[in-house]
Amino acid sequence: MSEASEKETGRIEAFSDGVYAIAITLLVLEIKVPGGAGLDLWKVLLAQWPSYFAFATSFATIGIMWINHHRMFNLIGRADPMLMILNGLLLMGVTFVPFPTAVVAGYLGQPGDKAAASFLAVTYIGIAIAFNLLWNYASSSRRNPRLLRVHEDHPTVRAIQGAYRFGPFYYVATLIAAFLDARLSVGLNLALAVYWALPPREEK
Amino acid sequence: MSEASEKETGRIEAFSDGVYAIAITLLVLEIKVPGGAGLDLWKVLLAQWPSYFAFATSFATIGIMWINHHRMFNLIGRADPMLMILNGLLLMGVTFVPFPTAVVAGYLGQPGDKAAASFLAVTYIGIAIAFNLLWNYASSSRRNPRLLRVHEDHPTVRAIQGAYRFGPFYYVATLIAAFLDARLSVGLNLALAVYWALPPREEK
Amino acid sequence: MSEASEKETGRIEAFSDGVYAIAITLLVLEIKVPGGAGLDLWKVLLAQWPSYFAFATSFATIGIMWINHHRMFNLIGRADPMLMILNGLLLMGVTFVPFPTAVVAGYLGQPGDKAAASFLAVTYIGIAIAFNLLWNYASSSRRNPRLLRVHEDHPTVRAIQGAYRFGPFYYVATLIAAFLDARLSVGLNLALAVYWALPPREEK
Amino acid sequence: MSEASEKETGRIEAFSDGVYAIAITLLVLEIKVPGGAGLDLWKVLLAQWPSYFAFATSFATIGIMWINHHRMFNLIGRADPMLMILNGLLLMGVTFVPFPTAVVAGYLGQPGDKAAASFLAVTYIGIAIAFNLLWNYASSSRRNPRLLRVHEDHPTVRAIQGAYRFGPFYYVATLIAAFLDARLSVGLNLALAVYWALPPREEK
Repeated sequence: MSEASEKETGRIEAFSDGVYAIAITLLVLEIKVPGGAGLDLWKVLLAQWPSYFAFATSFATIGIMWINHHRMFNLIGRADPMLMILNGLLLMGVTFVPFPTAVVAGYLGQPGDKAAASFLAVTYIGIAIAFNLLWNYASSSRRNPRLLRVHEDHPTVRAIQGAYRFGPFYYVATLIAAFLDARLSVGLNLALAVYWALPPREEK
Repeated sequence: MSEASEKETGRIEAFSDGVYAIAITLLVLEIKVPGGAGLDLWKVLLAQWPSYFAFATSFATIGIMWINHHRMFNLIGRADPMLMILNGLLLMGVTFVPFPTAVVAGYLGQPGDKAAASFLAVTYIGIAIAFNLLWNYASSSRRNPRLLRVHEDHPTVRAIQGAYRFGPFYYVATLIAAFLDARLSVGLNLALAVYWALPPREEK
Repeated sequence: MSEASEKETGRIEAFSDGVYAIAITLLVLEIKVPGGAGLDLWKVLLAQWPSYFAFATSFATIGIMWINHHRMFNLIGRADPMLMILNGLLLMGVTFVPFPTAVVAGYLGQPGDKAAASFLAVTYIGIAIAFNLLWNYASSSRRNPRLLRVHEDHPTVRAIQGAYRFGPFYYVATLIAAFLDARLSVGLNLALAVYWALPPREEK
Repeated sequence: MSEASEKETGRIEAFSDGVYAIAITLLVLEIKVPGGAGLDLWKVLLAQWPSYFAFATSFATIGIMWINHHRMFNLIGRADPMLMILNGLLLMGVTFVPFPTAVVAGYLGQPGDKAAASFLAVTYIGIAIAFNLLWNYASSSRRNPRLLRVHEDHPTVRAIQGAYRFGPFYYVATLIAAFLDARLSVGLNLALAVYWALPPREEK
């Protein structure tokens, strides 16, 4: 059996946590200090609401993704190279988020904002798909040795499976909304993040 | 009982620590290298004192908030989804700090600096309120199972409660000061950070 | 015996992990928000493909280097000052990666892109050499006390030795490719990263 | 006895490690991608040698400071609020380093470079003084309960005391060198970092 498959997943989690913490903290760098505002600075700062809206949305979304990442890794007891590659793919999506966030901040309320909002939605769809790839791989019953600590029929496993399966479709809805109104689309992303913050169904 | 509520708070603390460490280190990026200074570089560097003042103030403030965050989490023994959401709200405030800091750095001593200083004070008020929401939720005796490791009447719990309750009001004072003089307001924030570095009253 | 040589390598690993996590997350900062795109924003965003290509390549490369760093440190049981210096040299290379990545992002598909791609390849060659210096030092049988947990003839040690020895040469190939076509060279780097993600030979 | 004084120093070390890792990785952001270089890109990249020189110097210096920070905290068994404040002062100096590094990168070889090099040297003097303040406080025999794990006359304690006492003076030498030649001064800083990488005297 390979050495990599035996080593505990703690290190992957710690590395992933670091990436989430950094990506979430870098979001603020995309908010630019207005130049030459003079005495009307408050007015200029308030006019930058798209930056704050985009910041809050991506902060909440990355935060929820971090919580879900943990919920998933709580159930994963071993890692193998493919799991690390799929986790890397997921993290690549997470570290990319500050860029579409900055695009939304720069264009919301201006021509091109529908493209900006749909770019953010496409990014989130990609991350949701990566979540599904990772979870499907980790929870597969065909793998031997198995990667999960618990059986595939465990209610938490089934609840996660159910919740994640629909993740990409929720973001497809925000993508469609982007063609109607950019602000609606970003607002739906924010609402989804708050919704996902709640624990999965079976936990009552 | 939900799985999330059972898991120890160590991971939330580690993630929060990462966010604090990154936010405090990103502050320096807001200090800009002066262009075309030539032989008078020292003079130009010294003329950038608002950047250093804003940097030191926000460094001290985030540092103190980190210390207080730990003091609080030393007493919290369990997490639930709402605690994670409130902690996320607090962290969102902390990661936002580099932006108003950069605004203060850019405007102090120029027209608009009162607006800049009040923007920083408003940010700090928001963080202080988030601290109170988090602590009130965590220390509530109505929750079952309880989240604190100790009883709500423990002297440290009461001391924290007392100290945090007044946090927002201190920053309201720096907000009022901003309408008189921006430098006074930022200086008061720095003084408050040093004051908060001291341990709560009961610890003697 | 020196104190430093006795202390476990856990701290060096944690610090290195932090540096890898930060460097991999900073890559996104090099992707610039396009200005004044208006209604053609999607077109402008797609025209920035060199930025995404460079981002993905360096993300995959730093990710793979992180995995290999762990594989190596799994076998290292003690640290001494020279090991820390060589590890520092390696980390200096890793933290440098966002810069040549930004150069590639800025020049790919334009005059100068061969120089940009060769600059990235030279950076990777340097990191691969630093990996070899670190591993040769750590696995040397002449050192007393020895730094490895296992014997130098252990199959994993030999497999790592074999795999790392050729690392610089692979990147020399991408350097040569850069003189033919910049995109080919960057694509080869990406392919190498995927290749290196697979576990070393003996692990079957 | 206060709760803060009882809590182990592990958390302070972990936070400090995070700050060091981030500050050392942010250095690369100060190297700017040259614009409009075209086919002479390699020439333009090589002409940016001051950026690489400043990057390497500050990377080595922060790296050495991290090693010394650990050597010190290996001997510190308890924390109190003043120790946290002094450690915060030290970390404020460390997180500031990317700024003078960027100033040196921008001015070396041009008018004003002596001011830039002396600004870097002054920053390092400040950090060296903060190291001394922290260590003198931590190792004082007047404090009760004592913060060190070992006796103040322990050879490692005495060796650290001896080595750190002279730290500021070494950087005063690089400050004086800055008035002769900026490159000499930065080169001396780099040489000092390599020198400090070696373990203290008594360790043989």
